[in-house]
Amino acid sequence: MGFGALNSSLSKKGYVTSEFAQIWDEVAVLKAIVDVEVALAKVQGDNGMIPKNAAQLISEHAKISDALVEKARAGKVGNPLIAALDAIRSQVPNKVRGWVHFGATSQDILDTGRALQIKQSYNWLFHQLDELKQKMATLAEEHADTLMVARTNGQHALPTTLGTRFARWLAEIERSKQRLRDGYERATLIQFSGAAGTYASMGKEGMSVAQSIAAELGLSFEPVPWHASRDAITELCCTLAIYGQSLAKIAEDLFDMQRTDLAEAREQMDAHASGSSTMPQKLNPFTTMKISVGARLAAGLAATVLTQPPASFERDHRSLEVERDALPQIFIAVEHAAAKLLRLLDQLAFNETQLVNNTLLESPLLMTEGIMMVLAKHIGQEAAHDLLQDFAKEYRVNRTPLKEFMLASKYANEVEDVDFEALEDPRGYLGLSSEISRDAAKRFQNQLGE
Amino acid sequence: MGFGALNSSLSKKGYVTSEFAQIWDEVAVLKAIVDVEVALAKVQGDNGMIPKNAAQLISEHAKISDALVEKARAGKVGNPLIAALDAIRSQVPNKVRGWVHFGATSQDILDTGRALQIKQSYNWLFHQLDELKQKMATLAEEHADTLMVARTNGQHALPTTLGTRFARWLAEIERSKQRLRDGYERATLIQFSGAAGTYASMGKEGMSVAQSIAAELGLSFEPVPWHASRDAITELCCTLAIYGQSLAKIAEDLFDMQRTDLAEAREQMDAHASGSSTMPQKLNPFTTMKISVGARLAAGLAATVLTQPPASFERDHRSLEVERDALPQIFIAVEHAAAKLLRLLDQLAFNETQLVNNTLLESPLLMTEGIMMVLAKHIGQEAAHDLLQDFAKEYRVNRTPLKEFMLASKYANEVEDVDFEALEDPRGYLGLSSEISRDAAKRFQNQLGE
Amino acid sequence: MGFGALNSSLSKKGYVTSEFAQIWDEVAVLKAIVDVEVALAKVQGDNGMIPKNAAQLISEHAKISDALVEKARAGKVGNPLIAALDAIRSQVPNKVRGWVHFGATSQDILDTGRALQIKQSYNWLFHQLDELKQKMATLAEEHADTLMVARTNGQHALPTTLGTRFARWLAEIERSKQRLRDGYERATLIQFSGAAGTYASMGKEGMSVAQSIAAELGLSFEPVPWHASRDAITELCCTLAIYGQSLAKIAEDLFDMQRTDLAEAREQMDAHASGSSTMPQKLNPFTTMKISVGARLAAGLAATVLTQPPASFERDHRSLEVERDALPQIFIAVEHAAAKLLRLLDQLAFNETQLVNNTLLESPLLMTEGIMMVLAKHIGQEAAHDLLQDFAKEYRVNRTPLKEFMLASKYANEVEDVDFEALEDPRGYLGLSSEISRDAAKRFQNQLGE
Amino acid sequence: MGFGALNSSLSKKGYVTSEFAQIWDEVAVLKAIVDVEVALAKVQGDNGMIPKNAAQLISEHAKISDALVEKARAGKVGNPLIAALDAIRSQVPNKVRGWVHFGATSQDILDTGRALQIKQSYNWLFHQLDELKQKMATLAEEHADTLMVARTNGQHALPTTLGTRFARWLAEIERSKQRLRDGYERATLIQFSGAAGTYASMGKEGMSVAQSIAAELGLSFEPVPWHASRDAITELCCTLAIYGQSLAKIAEDLFDMQRTDLAEAREQMDAHASGSSTMPQKLNPFTTMKISVGARLAAGLAATVLTQPPASFERDHRSLEVERDALPQIFIAVEHAAAKLLRLLDQLAFNETQLVNNTLLESPLLMTEGIMMVLAKHIGQEAAHDLLQDFAKEYRVNRTPLKEFMLASKYANEVEDVDFEALEDPRGYLGLSSEISRDAAKRFQNQLGE
Repeated sequence: MGFGALNSSLSKKGYVTSEFAQIWDEVAVLKAIVDVEVALAKVQGDNGMIPKNAAQLISEHAKISDALVEKARAGKVGNPLIAALDAIRSQVPNKVRGWVHFGATSQDILDTGRALQIKQSYNWLFHQLDELKQKMATLAEEHADTLMVARTNGQHALPTTLGTRFARWLAEIERSKQRLRDGYERATLIQFSGAAGTYASMGKEGMSVAQSIAAELGLSFEPVPWHASRDAITELCCTLAIYGQSLAKIAEDLFDMQRTDLAEAREQMDAHASGSSTMPQKLNPFTTMKISVGARLAAGLAATVLTQPPASFERDHRSLEVERDALPQIFIAVEHAAAKLLRLLDQLAFNETQLVNNTLLESPLLMTEGIMMVLAKHIGQEAAHDLLQDFAKEYRVNRTPLKEFMLASKYANEVEDVDFEALEDPRGYLGLSSEISRDAAKRFQNQLGE
Repeated sequence: MGFGALNSSLSKKGYVTSEFAQIWDEVAVLKAIVDVEVALAKVQGDNGMIPKNAAQLISEHAKISDALVEKARAGKVGNPLIAALDAIRSQVPNKVRGWVHFGATSQDILDTGRALQIKQSYNWLFHQLDELKQKMATLAEEHADTLMVARTNGQHALPTTLGTRFARWLAEIERSKQRLRDGYERATLIQFSGAAGTYASMGKEGMSVAQSIAAELGLSFEPVPWHASRDAITELCCTLAIYGQSLAKIAEDLFDMQRTDLAEAREQMDAHASGSSTMPQKLNPFTTMKISVGARLAAGLAATVLTQPPASFERDHRSLEVERDALPQIFIAVEHAAAKLLRLLDQLAFNETQLVNNTLLESPLLMTEGIMMVLAKHIGQEAAHDLLQDFAKEYRVNRTPLKEFMLASKYANEVEDVDFEALEDPRGYLGLSSEISRDAAKRFQNQLGE
Repeated sequence: MGFGALNSSLSKKGYVTSEFAQIWDEVAVLKAIVDVEVALAKVQGDNGMIPKNAAQLISEHAKISDALVEKARAGKVGNPLIAALDAIRSQVPNKVRGWVHFGATSQDILDTGRALQIKQSYNWLFHQLDELKQKMATLAEEHADTLMVARTNGQHALPTTLGTRFARWLAEIERSKQRLRDGYERATLIQFSGAAGTYASMGKEGMSVAQSIAAELGLSFEPVPWHASRDAITELCCTLAIYGQSLAKIAEDLFDMQRTDLAEAREQMDAHASGSSTMPQKLNPFTTMKISVGARLAAGLAATVLTQPPASFERDHRSLEVERDALPQIFIAVEHAAAKLLRLLDQLAFNETQLVNNTLLESPLLMTEGIMMVLAKHIGQEAAHDLLQDFAKEYRVNRTPLKEFMLASKYANEVEDVDFEALEDPRGYLGLSSEISRDAAKRFQNQLGE
Repeated sequence: MGFGALNSSLSKKGYVTSEFAQIWDEVAVLKAIVDVEVALAKVQGDNGMIPKNAAQLISEHAKISDALVEKARAGKVGNPLIAALDAIRSQVPNKVRGWVHFGATSQDILDTGRALQIKQSYNWLFHQLDELKQKMATLAEEHADTLMVARTNGQHALPTTLGTRFARWLAEIERSKQRLRDGYERATLIQFSGAAGTYASMGKEGMSVAQSIAAELGLSFEPVPWHASRDAITELCCTLAIYGQSLAKIAEDLFDMQRTDLAEAREQMDAHASGSSTMPQKLNPFTTMKISVGARLAAGLAATVLTQPPASFERDHRSLEVERDALPQIFIAVEHAAAKLLRLLDQLAFNETQLVNNTLLESPLLMTEGIMMVLAKHIGQEAAHDLLQDFAKEYRVNRTPLKEFMLASKYANEVEDVDFEALEDPRGYLGLSSEISRDAAKRFQNQLGE
C-alpha cells in the first residue's frame, strides 16, 4: 500500500488504468533497464567491444522475471539502476558478469530506459487521442443544431448550439495532439555518452555505439549529452499537463452542466459508488471530478519540474530524482483522465428540454446583441446599445415586454417596423454555430492517425 | 510496486522512514477511520442516540486487522471511506450494522481520521526536532571557534567560524518548530457537523456530540464546519514544506562543503551505495542530495495545494482528493529529510585544515572590510573603501603585498603607523562569531521540549 | 506604464488600493531605507561609534523628498540600496557623508527597511480584517434563518440557511487573522549583523547596536542573522496567499450565486464598467472575479517563493530579488482583494425568493436524509437508505409523490403512521443552521481587535 | 514607480531591455488594440459591412499617440480594451464613432492584439537566439581542446574540455529554438468569432471576415474560437520558461565557475555596481545572478498559468487577467536573460591555468575510470573496479602513488606491464570531448536562421 491518492491501492481504479500501470510501474522500470543493457551488449558484441558470445549469453539470461524483480527489491540499494544491475548480474553466467553494463554509466541506462517507456506511452496516447477525437467529432455533429445558451463570466450571453461546445473541446484536444507530436523526437532521445558525457569509456567508437543502440531501440540520436540539460523532459511534463488541463476544461464544463441547478447533462452512475453515505438522493458526478483531480495533480507535478533549479555542471542526481517522482505520475494521471473522459462520453445523456428551458430563462435579454445589430441600422450602434441596456434594467425589475418598451421609447418612430417577436427567437441568432460544429467534426476526424 | 520515487519499493529506504510509513500508509488511513467510527459509536451510545450495547459491540468488533484491510482493498469502490465502511460493517454482528456510522458523513470521518494521523505525526516531529536541535547546538558550541570563510554570492566575504553556520541553521529550525506549534490546534480540528454542516442528522445534540468526540480523540473543537474551508490544511502543507526547505538549506550547504573543490566536509559513505557504477573514485554525497529532493518534492506538493481553486459551496470532493495525494507525501518527505539529516550529522567529518586553507585562499583580500574600518579613522571611510578597491584589483593581478601597496599610495603618510600584518590575520576579525555560536547553542537547547 | 495586470496604470484601480500603493511603491521602499539609515546613525551617535553631530546632521538632511527620489531613479545602478545610498549621500553635508551607512551592509538595510513596510502593512491588515469580520458577522446574524439549499459536489444536498455560509467564511477569515498574528514577530525581525553576519564592522558592541535599532524602529530582535534563512519571508508569503484564497473562496461562492442560472445574489454594478461592449444585457460580476484573480496571482507568487532553491552559504542575492518581486505584489493583491470584498458586501443584494425557489427545485429529494433518519427508527437505517435511493430514482423519472411511493413499498405497514408531508418541509430539517450562524456572529465579533 | 523587481524603475536596467519594453509596455498594448480595430474596419469596409469611407476615416484617425494614451489612462475603467475603445472613439470623427469596433467583442480584440505582440516578440527572439548560438558555437570551437574537469554530483568525475560544456549549452538552446518554432502558429492565432464564439454579429460572412483580418495582420486562422481554451498561451508560457531555465543553467554553471574557490571564469565588472557597500574586495557575479532571477520569476509565472483552473464555459475573464499579468512578464524576463547572457559571453574570461590546476586537484583519482578500462583487460572489470575503489580510499588518506599501490596489490603480476604514468595524464582520457565540441559548433551554426 502506498502514500497519496495516486498510489492508493484502495482507490486503484481511481487514477490509474491497467495499460499505463503496465508501462510505468516499477517492474516496467526494471524491464526497460534490462532492455537497454541487452541492447548495449548486443551492439558491443557486434563491434567487438565485448566477446560475441558474452553478448549472446547476456541477451539470453537477462530477462525480466519474478526472480529478477524479487532480487532487485531485496537489495539494500535505493538507486533503481544499481538494484537492477545487481539483479541482472545475478541472472547471467558468472563468466560474463563483467561484460554486463560494460563501460556504461547509470544515468545513461536510466535515461534511455525511460525513453523506451515514453515511446510506449506515446503510442498508446496517440491511439487514445484518436478515439477521443472520434467520439467528440460524432457528438459535435450530432448536436450541431441542439439549442443551448452560451455563458460568459457565469452569465447568459448568447444562444448557440451544444455542437459548438464540442467543437471547441475538439480543437483544443487536436492542439494537444500536435504538441505531443512536435515534442516526440526530443522526448525519446537516447543518452549514451558515459560518465561525463565524453564517450571516453567506449573509445573512439563511442558515438557510433550510441547511434547503433538508438537504432536498435527505436530512439532518436543526438551526440551531445543531455545529462544536465533536462529541457526535453520538462517540456514533456508541461505538454502532458496542458493536455490534462484541456481534459479538465471539458470535465468541469460537464460538472457544471450536471449541477442540480442546470441539469443539462447527467452521467450514468452507480448509486453505491457515486452516492452519499447519508443522503440517499445524491448522485455525485465523480467521473468529472476525478478527471479534474488528475489534471490538477499533473499540473502541480509539472510545475514542480518546471521550477526546479538547473542541474549542476555535467550531472546532478537531484534533477533525475524529481523527474523520477513526477513524470510517471503525470503520465498516469493524464492518461487516466483521458480514459475516464472516453467512458464518460459514452455514458452521458444531455437533457435537451432543459437546455431549451435554460436558454429561455432570461429571454428576451439573451437576444439583446442580435436586436442591437438590427436597431443599429435604424438608430445607430451606440444609441441601440444604450437603449437595450435600459431595456435590460427595466426588464429585470418589471418584466416589461420588449416591444412595449421599444414603442414607449423616444425611438418609437424609428423602430416601429421592426419585427420584435422574430428577434426574440434564439434560434434566429445562432450565427455559424451549426457550421462550426459540422466543420470541426469533419476536419478533425480527417486528421485521425496523422 | 508504485509510481514515482516517493512510492518506489526499490528505493523504499530512500524517502520514507518506518515511523512515518506506519502513520501514513493506507493501513494507517483505515485504522484512523476505524478509530473515529468507534469513538462516534461510543459517544452516541453514551448519550442514547444509539443503543448502548450496539456501541459496545461496534467497539469490540471494529478493529483494524488483516481481514478488514483485505476486505477494504477487495472492494470495488475508490472512496477509501466507503471501502472502509463496507469492511467495518462486515466485521460487526449483523444486528448492529445499521448503527455503525449512524447519521455520519463520509467527509467528517475522513477529515477527523486524518486529524488523528496529523496529531501522531506532530508528536513525532516535535521529538525529532528536539533531537535535531540538540545535535546542532552541540556542533555550534563545538565549532564556535573553528575558523571558516563566509561566502556571499559565491565569493569569499569575511572570516567567521563554523559554529555560526550551525547557529543560523539552528535558529531557522527553531522557527520551524514555533511555526508548527502555532498551527497545531488549527491542524487537528475535528470535523463532525454532517452532510451539509448543519448537524441535522444528529438532532439538537449535534454540537455536543461533536465536542465529545473531539474530547475522546484528543482533537480541538470548533462548531463551524470547515468542509469547504481548507485553509488549515493548506497552512500545514506550507509549514511542513518551509521546514523541508530549511533542511534543504542545511543539506545544500553541506553538499557544497563536500565539493571536491572545497573539501571542507565529508559524509561517511558506503562505497557501493554512494559510488558510481563506472568511476571507482566517486563518493557522491547522496544523503545531502536526498534531503534536497525530499524538500523539493514537498515544496512542489505544497505549492499544488496552495494554488488549488477554492472548494465550491458547502463541500467539494476535488479539494479533498488533492490533499489526500499531497499531505501524506509532504509529511513523509519532510520527516524523512529530517531523519536523514540527523544521521548525517553523526557521520559528518569537518576538515579543519582545509577550512583554514580555504579561508586563506585570497588572504589578504578577505580582510579588506576590517582594514577599511581601521583606515577609515585615518583617511575617512570613502577614501578607505576606494583605496582598498584599488588594492584588490592590483593584488589580483600582481599579488602586491598589502603594506607595500599602502606605503606606495598617496595616503602613505597617514597610514604609516598602521600594523598591516596584524590586520591580515583572519582570526583578528571574527567579530562576534564565537559569541553567536555559543549563545545560540545555549538558548535553543534551553527551549527543548517547549 | 508597467508590465502585467498588477502593475498596469490602465487598470490601476483594478488591483491596488491607494493605501497599499503608499506602503509598497518604490518611493516607500526608499523611505524605509532612509528611516533605517537615520536610525542607524542615531544609535551610533548615541553610543559614540560616530560623532554625535554627524548623527544629527544625517537625521536632519536624510529625508525622503522628490529630489532624493529623482536622484535615486537617475542613478545607473540597479540595486535599490546603492541607488538610495547615493541619493542620501548627495543630500547630507559633505563632511558627514562618510558616516552615513557606517559599517553597515546593503542587505541589512534592505531587510530591515522591508520589515518596516511589513509592520505598516500588518497594522492596516488587522484593521481591515476587523472591518471584514464585523460586516460578515452582521450578515451571518441577519441571515441566520434565511432558507437556502446547501450544495455539495455541485448537487443539492440539504436545506440550510444563508447565515451558515457567512459563518463558515467568517471562521476561515478569523483563522487567517490568527495565522497572521502568529507570524508577526518572525516577519518583523531586524537584520543587522553585517556583511557576513558576524557584527565584525560594529565591533564588540554589534549586538547591542542592533538591539537598539530594533527598539528604535519597533521591530523584533534575534542576534542570529537570517541573511540566507528566508523561512520567515516564505511563511509570510504563504500566510498572505492563504488569506487571499479564503477571500477567493467567498468571491467564487458569490460568483456562482450570481450565475444567471442561480440568481441568488447580485452585486450592484456600473453598466459601463461591468457591461459588455457588445451584449447590452450583460452584467458581469467583475468584483468577484477580480478578487479571484488577485488571489490566484498571490498564490502563484507565494508558490514561487516557496519553491525557491535555498540561498547559498552566508548570503545569496538571488533569493532577495525573487522576494523583492513577489512580496510587494502578494501584499498588494491580497489587501486589494480584501478591500474589494468589503465594498462588495455593502453592494450585495440577496434574492430570498430565488433562494427559496432553488431550495425547492428538487424537493422532496432534498429531504431524503431527514426522512431516512425518521424511517430508520421504523425499518432500520440500511433499509431506509436503500428505499430512499429507490424513491429518488423513481421520483427523477416519474415525479411520484413521496407518500404514494412509500405506501406502495414493501414497508407500507411499518411507515403508515409517518407524517410524510411534514418531513417534506425543508424548514423542518435545518439542524443547527441558525444556531451556528448566530453563535459565530457573536463569537467572532467579540474577538475584534484581539 | 511600480511594485516588484521586474516593474522597478530603480532597477529598470535590471530586468527589462528597451526592445521588449517597447513591445510589451502598456502603450504597446494600446497600439496593438488600435491596429486590430483598424484592420477590422478595413476588412468590414472592403466587404460592405460598414461604409467604405467610415473605414478610411477610422484608419486615418485611430492612431497611437500621446493624446490617445493619455485619454486611455485618464478613464475610470479598469478593462484595457474599454479604456482603449473610449480613447479611440474620442479620436475619430463623430459620425463614424459607431462603426469603430462594429459587431466586435472585447476579448477578440484583446486576444488578437496580443497575438500581434507575440509575433513581434518571436521575430526578435529568433534573431537573438541566432546571435546566442553563434557566440556559443564560436566558444565551443575555441575551447574544443581546453582541458577542464567534469563535475557530477559536485564531485570531480572525469577530464573533459571546456568546449563540451559549450556544446551542451548550445544543444539545449537549439532545442528551445525548435520548441518556439513548433508552437509559433498556435501562439499567433487570431480570435474573432464574437461574444460567444458564434460569429453571429458578423452575419454569414463571419468566418471570412475573421480570415481576412488574420491575413491583414499576418496571423494564423482557425475558425473554432479559443476564448475559453487557453492551452496555446499556456504552452507559450511554458516554452518561454523552459528557455529561461536553459539560460539559467548556463548562468549557474558560470556563477559556480566564478566562485572564489574555483576561479575558473570571471566576468568583467564595474566595481561600483557589482561591488559591496562594505567589502572593498568583493566582485559579485551579478550578471549571472540576474539571469537566474529572471528565469526563476518566469518559471514561477508559467507555473501559475499552468496550474490555473480551466476557464468556465464559453468565456471567463479570470483566465485572461492571469495571463495579462504573467505573459508580458515572462517574455520580458526571459528575453532580458538572453540579452544579459549575450553580453556576458563577450565579457567573460576563462582562466586556463586554474582550469588545469582544478583538473589536477585530485589526480590520479580523476583517472580511475580510464585506468579501470585498461585494468579490466588484465584482471576483469569487477576486480578492477574494486581494486581502484580501494586505491581511492588509500590515496585519500595517505596519498600513496598509484603504481606503488598497484605493485603492492595481489594483482601485482597481472599489472606489472601497465604504464601507469601514462594513465595518470588527464589529456589521455578526453574521449570525444574535442569532437563533440567541434561537431556541435559546426552543426548548430549551420542551423542559424532556420
